[in-house]
Amino acid sequence: MQTSNSKGNAKAERRIRRLSLHLTPAAGVAAEQLEMATCGRGKVSVDTASLSRYMRGKHRDIQEKIFAYFNANPRLQTPVEISKDEHRDLCMKQLIGLVREAGIRPLRYVVDDPSKYFAIVEAAGAVDMSLGIKLGVQYSLWGGSVLNLGTKKHKDKYFDGIDNLDYPGCFAMTELHHGSNVQGLQTAATFDPITDEFIIDTPNDGAIKWWIGNAAVHGKFATVFARLKLPTYDTKGVSDMGVHAFIVPIRDMNTHQPLPGIEIHDCGHKVGLNGVDNGALRFRSVRIPRDNLLNRFGDVSRDGKYTSSLPTVNKRFAATLGELVGGRVALAYSSVSVLKVASTIAIRYSLLRQQFGPPNKPEVSILDYQSQQHKLMPMLASTYAFHFATKNLVEKYSQMKKTHDDELVADVHALSAGLKAYITAYTAKSLSICREACGGHGYAAVNRFGILRNDHDIFQTFEGDNTVLLQQVAADLLKQYKGKFKGGTFAVTWNYLRESMNTYLSQPNPVTARWEGEDHLRDPKFQLDAFRYRTSRLLQSVAVRLRKHSKSLGDFGAWNRCLNHLLTLAESHIESVILAKFIEAMESCPDPSSQAALKLVCDLYALDRIWNDIGTYRNVDYVAPNKAKAIHKLSEYLSFQVRNIARELVDAFDLPDQVTRAPIAMRSEAYSQYTQYVGF
Amino acid sequence: MQTSNSKGNAKAERRIRRLSLHLTPAAGVAAEQLEMATCGRGKVSVDTASLSRYMRGKHRDIQEKIFAYFNANPRLQTPVEISKDEHRDLCMKQLIGLVREAGIRPLRYVVDDPSKYFAIVEAAGAVDMSLGIKLGVQYSLWGGSVLNLGTKKHKDKYFDGIDNLDYPGCFAMTELHHGSNVQGLQTAATFDPITDEFIIDTPNDGAIKWWIGNAAVHGKFATVFARLKLPTYDTKGVSDMGVHAFIVPIRDMNTHQPLPGIEIHDCGHKVGLNGVDNGALRFRSVRIPRDNLLNRFGDVSRDGKYTSSLPTVNKRFAATLGELVGGRVALAYSSVSVLKVASTIAIRYSLLRQQFGPPNKPEVSILDYQSQQHKLMPMLASTYAFHFATKNLVEKYSQMKKTHDDELVADVHALSAGLKAYITAYTAKSLSICREACGGHGYAAVNRFGILRNDHDIFQTFEGDNTVLLQQVAADLLKQYKGKFKGGTFAVTWNYLRESMNTYLSQPNPVTARWEGEDHLRDPKFQLDAFRYRTSRLLQSVAVRLRKHSKSLGDFGAWNRCLNHLLTLAESHIESVILAKFIEAMESCPDPSSQAALKLVCDLYALDRIWNDIGTYRNVDYVAPNKAKAIHKLSEYLSFQVRNIARELVDAFDLPDQVTRAPIAMRSEAYSQYTQYVGF
Repeated sequence: MQTSNSKGNAKAERRIRRLSLHLTPAAGVAAEQLEMATCGRGKVSVDTASLSRYMRGKHRDIQEKIFAYFNANPRLQTPVEISKDEHRDLCMKQLIGLVREAGIRPLRYVVDDPSKYFAIVEAAGAVDMSLGIKLGVQYSLWGGSVLNLGTKKHKDKYFDGIDNLDYPGCFAMTELHHGSNVQGLQTAATFDPITDEFIIDTPNDGAIKWWIGNAAVHGKFATVFARLKLPTYDTKGVSDMGVHAFIVPIRDMNTHQPLPGIEIHDCGHKVGLNGVDNGALRFRSVRIPRDNLLNRFGDVSRDGKYTSSLPTVNKRFAATLGELVGGRVALAYSSVSVLKVASTIAIRYSLLRQQFGPPNKPEVSILDYQSQQHKLMPMLASTYAFHFATKNLVEKYSQMKKTHDDELVADVHALSAGLKAYITAYTAKSLSICREACGGHGYAAVNRFGILRNDHDIFQTFEGDNTVLLQQVAADLLKQYKGKFKGGTFAVTWNYLRESMNTYLSQPNPVTARWEGEDHLRDPKFQLDAFRYRTSRLLQSVAVRLRKHSKSLGDFGAWNRCLNHLLTLAESHIESVILAKFIEAMESCPDPSSQAALKLVCDLYALDRIWNDIGTYRNVDYVAPNKAKAIHKLSEYLSFQVRNIARELVDAFDLPDQVTRAPIAMRSEAYSQYTQYVGF
Repeated sequence: MQTSNSKGNAKAERRIRRLSLHLTPAAGVAAEQLEMATCGRGKVSVDTASLSRYMRGKHRDIQEKIFAYFNANPRLQTPVEISKDEHRDLCMKQLIGLVREAGIRPLRYVVDDPSKYFAIVEAAGAVDMSLGIKLGVQYSLWGGSVLNLGTKKHKDKYFDGIDNLDYPGCFAMTELHHGSNVQGLQTAATFDPITDEFIIDTPNDGAIKWWIGNAAVHGKFATVFARLKLPTYDTKGVSDMGVHAFIVPIRDMNTHQPLPGIEIHDCGHKVGLNGVDNGALRFRSVRIPRDNLLNRFGDVSRDGKYTSSLPTVNKRFAATLGELVGGRVALAYSSVSVLKVASTIAIRYSLLRQQFGPPNKPEVSILDYQSQQHKLMPMLASTYAFHFATKNLVEKYSQMKKTHDDELVADVHALSAGLKAYITAYTAKSLSICREACGGHGYAAVNRFGILRNDHDIFQTFEGDNTVLLQQVAADLLKQYKGKFKGGTFAVTWNYLRESMNTYLSQPNPVTARWEGEDHLRDPKFQLDAFRYRTSRLLQSVAVRLRKHSKSLGDFGAWNRCLNHLLTLAESHIESVILAKFIEAMESCPDPSSQAALKLVCDLYALDRIWNDIGTYRNVDYVAPNKAKAIHKLSEYLSFQVRNIARELVDAFDLPDQVTRAPIAMRSEAYSQYTQYVGF
């Protein structure tokens, strides 16, 4: 037995040796050289101040004004534990303080200077995310709907009251039974030609307006989305003109009591954002003047005739919803802020925290563990990537608000949907990873991960459910794809597909599929090509599948049959847009040391994403096994390299301590700030 | 231009057609046949009662007693919103009610009938997870440490007081600076031979006991882990015998004031589990009798001599910690319960909720969308898989507590570490997916996802950080691997590696790598082989890498260099153990219709996991591109099939409505229960 065992062992060891050669192919050569080369090269040095300057937005001044105001008013700072009712009360006080004491008047910026408006939302959200959202409800949703869907008469009547908070308001779109499917809303607004009024009615329980921010406690008005119904003189008696928006006063200006016919209930405790008072509204024959129709895209005359500059219900609906795209831009942008806070806390703590170590040596920082680098370094890289992508989105959106250029409108629409969906989903996952990466101390409420996660969670759902938004991106890609065959052009953002569609229809090149040198893998061209190849391939294949399935299943059935494929396509496209913007930002960076740091981070973002989807690349032999291995090895190595400048990279986010707040993330004396917090 | 465009189009279309053939290879044939075949086959019918009977544990009676008690005592039910202090108070009342009114006396079961004990923890956790954890602190940690680490004198003195709650206690292991690295604890217990006492001291802030459950408010005693220091008569003056456990009274039995030398602070608000009062403890020369050393594995005589049946510090440490493995079993088991609740709520709501649909047709249930099936059906399959895996773990643990068989001890140790880490991480991710899958209504606190996620979150960290536990699994695998070459045997759970090591050292079979028939892909042998192949391959390759790197980096450095690889290995192993248990349970099911349902679910579990890691399989050509595609297609199709019996599958979990509680998950009138809840 012993002999046969030894023999078996020798044989097994030979096999293992052979296998190891197979698994780490030429392994030896390329990889070892890479290590030697880079070890000699040492750490990239980062000039935090210079990098920070490059990152900083142009509205830092107004943000600092906001921080200074709350810093000077401790009574307005949200404590770690607070009841729902106290939180709502405090949140309203914070908003009033911001507007009336600090003199921040956001409404004008909603249309005139969106990047300034988003900077205000970001800073308010950093004080307390409930405040950021409450501010958004008042100015972007309620105010924005009046400005964007109404006409001069509405602006004249409501602007000041909204801006100075005399008119706190709501945005009453969602119903109990209808969230994503806005065209399915049931609330009715029937024109009464006798009194020249609309009668707002909730026809059934499913049509109760639900989740309406500002409704449970503070709102005096609501923009109510309802089916416009006009009397006809045929047998039907009434004609449904589709969903329109109406200003409905909901509470008495003096007594603050709900007005007759309006029943308001409290939606109650939420997972997060409990500073925002979400309510449910039921309307029973509530009469409002005809003037309260927000009539920019469609109007009703005194005698009940409908007029619109837009020809169809669908086009009017699209125009109406199109004006709401700013909310998505704000969410994508704010989600990146949350990710910055979370990754800063997790990374600073991981540098501070020491646990285990080599025998008889001091314990090592947990960020020195490969597993911790794996959790946090690609996340840090993504945070940088998203920063530049949303910065670009905000710029595009601002330009669109000025020029109303059609192509730009389409581009911003799809891009905001895609970035909102992709980034908020990524941030949500990252918040859980950060908590877990900080172990027990990550579970202390004071260290922030709980509240950040609970508050941010709904970013994935409101202003468009992520799964629905990604389908819009996919639909848009398919529209462009089809348009191309009809001689059309691509919108700006998908421009790259024009080229890649031709390039990538051919089989992958078996030679480049094996290239595994570091220079090649870190070449932006290789990275972009890989991202775009995947998108083009997914686009072409899903178009073929849709055509095939629609014959037997119809369009709806075919779409559903390919739904996972479509979502993957949308994500792939968004990832490649993000990478392209990151590369641009890196290449435009004037300071060489900052540029070197950004290059490192950008490479990690790109290669980590490719490795995460390596199955796709392998399946079509775009990447040979040796190259797959080299990509994996290099991304682990880049994580290690980024770890070496992680402190500087989070410092460059330039978050004041009053924004991070977590004791474990303080730049000095973190542990003792923590023990003092609990009373030692 | 037009002509050249048309030509381009024709060419592009030809390319697309060619491409589509390439992408759906023979696609046609196998896949289409599969669809036709299965469409004809229709829906598997499930006898919920029979399946439920098969799933049900043997201690359902005591669980029903617990549910009935709380049902009859509404004052003891935790409201949706409650402050930390009220919650702690209520939680203690719940525990007292359970023990003194409902007559549940858990302590005896901790050692004598663990499966009954875990059933009690599960039911208490379903009432309020804080209650489950508080019960675990009292009985499993405080009580368990006395029973398992102490001797008869301790049992005689403390058993009744612990059991009837006269002696509420704590388990004071973790310190501010040391969580995972228990051997690094700094609290000292120095023997004073003059007074025959130990002196407990906190030498520095980093050694403050932190996160100690039951300490902030209710505890009267604590099992304190401290370095045992014995006086010596050499120049050192004192000898460090390593970490031992001591019973330390912390509050006066009558006044409930902290005893002299003991400083207690409140760790404050946590992300979740706020019904549990975690505190921080600092000791200043606290004297306890020598008898308070829990002396099962090591003792000190009156004259300060140390005796132990175990030869080394490391062995004594391992024996001490080994007794705490029950906590991991309880967490793995309870985590599955949380997953059952969450998936039940998400799936019932997804059946209820309708949104969008084909033109002029009613809206469809959102569970009919492929994307929603993709989110929830593999999760449902995993819930079943984990159910059987943890059931098996509990049985093994119970047996171990009876037989103390060495092999079984080692097996349970690694298996509990692995299942705890794998399952809690999966559940944590799933809770977020469920919330998001339920959209806005998933964000209402009353619908449970927030509190479930916040409470469960720390399951990933306490009783062993998941990343650390997985390393224990990997270390154990490597130990067995090395042992094999020395003629040793594998422990029960890795038995499969004995065979697979020989089988899988050879190159994958290029013929079977292309097999894509449904019968083959649904053959448990193929599935298990694939899982085990991956584990064997990862094990062999990491062993080679460790050996290589240890030469230049030392053992610690080499381990760290391979850390991601090691974690993947551990997860892969655990996945294959889970699959093996699932297949066993499916094959042993006596009722044919339940068996058919379990087979479907088991296949989905297996193929979904293989597809998720398809890159690995492709990289080594274990699976050819056509087979990869077929696996993907079949797992999407199985998700669809499981969706057809999803209602029955969640009903078979047999969760009473008072456990699910979410209005949106009620079996009838869900929407109206929800509107009533908010006051309509």
